[in-house]
Amino acid sequence: MILEVAVLNIKPGFSLEFETAFSIAQSIISSMPGYLSHEVHRCMENSNRYLLLVRWESLKYHTEGFRQSPQYQEWKALLHHFYTPFPTVEHYEAVNHLCSIAPNH
Amino acid sequence: MILEVAVLNIKPGFSLEFETAFSIAQSIISSMPGYLSHEVHRCMENSNRYLLLVRWESLKYHTEGFRQSPQYQEWKALLHHFYTPFPTVEHYEAVNHLCSIAPNH
Repeated sequence: MILEVAVLNIKPGFSLEFETAFSIAQSIISSMPGYLSHEVHRCMENSNRYLLLVRWESLKYHTEGFRQSPQYQEWKALLHHFYTPFPTVEHYEAVNHLCSIAPNH
Repeated sequence: MILEVAVLNIKPGFSLEFETAFSIAQSIISSMPGYLSHEVHRCMENSNRYLLLVRWESLKYHTEGFRQSPQYQEWKALLHHFYTPFPTVEHYEAVNHLCSIAPNH
């Protein structure tokens, strides 16, 4: 299991539109091979900022499977115009002995 | 439930020492009032970078309860010298209709 992490900075004033678009877009990512789960969190210090966490079975399901799929073009069209600047996406692996819960969901 | 999020950049060459120190420090945070769970993840693109996620019952348990406690001084002494630069800590609230799982653990 790997964790995709992206801090999403949304153009000021477009948070609600972003949330509506994401509510549609999440059905795209949820249907991809290797997808496990996702969470979106809103920043309490900056109302234009969100944290996206997506769990994948392995890195390639995200970087090759999803990003090279036709479905990624739909995802892009729904979401990418909200971002400023365009987010840096990173991938993380759990350090199991430093987690209080099994991060496998 | 709120999520504390910190990207921890560790001084190059000190990742193992940081992990050892964190394995001790996690017993401190785990014993604090309002603490729910934590996870540490290692960045796949940058081996000196970790993501810390801590779930608290509410913001004040972290910002007032933990940070103003004597235990925070022990946490600092164990961990803060590993960071470069010192991390920005943010707090997030789940947008429940944009999560595939209930983020309450």
